[in-house]
Amino acid sequence: HVNSLEDFERVPVVTKAELRQSQADNEPFGDYLCVPESEVHHIHGTSGTTGRPTAFAIGRDDWQAIANNQARVMWGMGLRPGDIIFIGSVFSLYMGSWGTMIGSERLRAKCFPFGAGATGMTSRAALWMQLTKPKAFYGTPSYALHIAEIAQGEGIDPRDFGLELLFFSGEPGASIPSGKGRIEDLYAARVIDSGSMAEMTPWMNCAGTRETDGMLLWQDFVYTEVCDPKSFSRVGWGEQGTPVYTHLERTSQPMIRLLSGDLTHWTDGADNPCGRTYPRLPDGIYGRIDDMFTIRGENIYPSAIDGVLNELPGYGGEHRIIITRDGAMDELLVKMDALEDVYAQGEDALSELRGRAEKDLSIVLGVRARVEIAAAGEIPRTDFKARRVVDDRDLFKSLMSGGRET
Amino acid sequence: HVNSLEDFERVPVVTKAELRQSQADNEPFGDYLCVPESEVHHIHGTSGTTGRPTAFAIGRDDWQAIANNQARVMWGMGLRPGDIIFIGSVFSLYMGSWGTMIGSERLRAKCFPFGAGATGMTSRAALWMQLTKPKAFYGTPSYALHIAEIAQGEGIDPRDFGLELLFFSGEPGASIPSGKGRIEDLYAARVIDSGSMAEMTPWMNCAGTRETDGMLLWQDFVYTEVCDPKSFSRVGWGEQGTPVYTHLERTSQPMIRLLSGDLTHWTDGADNPCGRTYPRLPDGIYGRIDDMFTIRGENIYPSAIDGVLNELPGYGGEHRIIITRDGAMDELLVKMDALEDVYAQGEDALSELRGRAEKDLSIVLGVRARVEIAAAGEIPRTDFKARRVVDDRDLFKSLMSGGRET
Repeated sequence: HVNSLEDFERVPVVTKAELRQSQADNEPFGDYLCVPESEVHHIHGTSGTTGRPTAFAIGRDDWQAIANNQARVMWGMGLRPGDIIFIGSVFSLYMGSWGTMIGSERLRAKCFPFGAGATGMTSRAALWMQLTKPKAFYGTPSYALHIAEIAQGEGIDPRDFGLELLFFSGEPGASIPSGKGRIEDLYAARVIDSGSMAEMTPWMNCAGTRETDGMLLWQDFVYTEVCDPKSFSRVGWGEQGTPVYTHLERTSQPMIRLLSGDLTHWTDGADNPCGRTYPRLPDGIYGRIDDMFTIRGENIYPSAIDGVLNELPGYGGEHRIIITRDGAMDELLVKMDALEDVYAQGEDALSELRGRAEKDLSIVLGVRARVEIAAAGEIPRTDFKARRVVDDRDLFKSLMSGGRET
Repeated sequence: HVNSLEDFERVPVVTKAELRQSQADNEPFGDYLCVPESEVHHIHGTSGTTGRPTAFAIGRDDWQAIANNQARVMWGMGLRPGDIIFIGSVFSLYMGSWGTMIGSERLRAKCFPFGAGATGMTSRAALWMQLTKPKAFYGTPSYALHIAEIAQGEGIDPRDFGLELLFFSGEPGASIPSGKGRIEDLYAARVIDSGSMAEMTPWMNCAGTRETDGMLLWQDFVYTEVCDPKSFSRVGWGEQGTPVYTHLERTSQPMIRLLSGDLTHWTDGADNPCGRTYPRLPDGIYGRIDDMFTIRGENIYPSAIDGVLNELPGYGGEHRIIITRDGAMDELLVKMDALEDVYAQGEDALSELRGRAEKDLSIVLGVRARVEIAAAGEIPRTDFKARRVVDDRDLFKSLMSGGRET
């Protein structure tokens, strides 16, 4: 029997692998839909970078409850009825854009769901923000940097958009002082961090407010525990662990102790500047307990890249994954070796191998990957997966060197 | 005084140029918003291929009325509560995706707003349709052909998606027998045409039904007259003209006699197989009274291409616009000449000019354009704009040769 929050710590965690398995056994929504199929209102899903994607089926009532909760959090950010909220992130599987949209609608704001991702959209995003002067922008930190860069290249000062607020999810940038400061300076606007997991939508259950940096844990609609990554019992205030989430209002695909695998540290929130008494993640979510990394909002597992390359005729068996920042956008570079006889065939064969690898990777990962081919044996062998990943992004660099008070 | 539908013919038409001018004078929504600003629920807009884009501001009540009307039309197509409706078109400015989404929601269907346009999405669309087995697909005809091609390339038969229905807008293909037949064969599913103009949303006011080909004019929520392109009075049944639309339910940015500039012919609908008594466009909307053309759902005016090239240093002053079908997707090719001295500078200079032209065109047009550079004087001069456009698409070819009974 679970009679207290202390008992609740003994409830086993649910992993994303278990959700995938359940959906493979019970297509398409798994054995945990928990509402009649006729109540399913929207279908979304993960990008499926580890093979089988996970389908999200969200009930009609939940859609409304999600809108209510996101609107409440956005109110805490300082947004009000009538504000123009510009959504500059792709509308597809990814829940981020949709949650922001229905929250904006519920808030009685003017929702401008501009989207992202297709040809020429970045320049046009700048044009439309200049024209409509939104109060707030939602997207990823790296895309906000990219828009600013493109705008400046066209002689437009991003400050002219008149934004008061940019709120982000999908990347750790918005709680890292250097990344946050750079964006706040470019736009002369406040940056607020938000976001937990797509499975947990209303994903703004972790979100900052107008007055409070980092993220508050809005415990009354998603109960969050920061836990030891091995025992899954809660760590003390000030300590580091992985968030474990429990839906309090969802009835469709509700999650009880879903393991995020993210890394953070929490405080009791007694000193939150906004006066809210929620626990707080002062530095947001800044890492992983496994080897997943996030690039332009997509979760990528090195094992997925492994999988693609291993099916590629001509692959020599070793590779490195390098995450860089080309201008403002994260870029994924995969350096792979070729079989000796393929390499000996010269430029045409290598160019074909490169093209095939880039295409297959982009299909599976959902983000563009640049591939470089090395000679067989040029890349030193390693059996330790994590050593294959080199993360060269400024945001991560500054995070790794920045003084976190754990 | 307007006392009859006959009197109504004398009401002047509204043109898109007038809407643009009104918005330039009264930023951002023009002098015809007609509801308090606080009632604006969503902001969308045109892609602005002729310079200034037009902003759509849609009121909260209208959003609901639009959903009601679209749901009614989709019921007429044979869609029912609980059906999975897969939306494979980009969610951004373009109203098509949004109207289908809120219509699906209102119908109590399972809405799967997958989107389109970003890296790798086509393969994943095929994957998700295979996984979730939707009853219906919404998008453009050319994108449905493209998905089928990509799926087949990966060894997937599009018939395995189990679709019963594909409904389209944004291109003339769905009412042209050859294009329609090809898609119906590839998917073993029925194709239904729909769509008027984004300004007229609920744009499904022109739409076919489960039993009736072409498009019915759903006169009770948008009153449509097919008019003489010069006098703007109605043409007789069986005759060709341009649709002029009047909102009957919209309160935000309502349109009274908006001139579409499209080309169609209509019948009295007495013999509609479904028994509905609406007038009918037996061949859908198949052309323009001006020189606008549509490529992948974007409306393009040759004058916009003119404008971009004329601002390009190095442009020799003449060009041709060639619309081709590369595989299943429409492709826009612009062949332009270079100034003599630029051409003489050789490959590097030409490659730079080409890159710049492609970038500028994609920003203004919202679709990718491929540019070829010709030597100065190689392209014969013409002052007749229409001669600059060569439309080489199968759909158009079949349309132009196909026997329309006007």
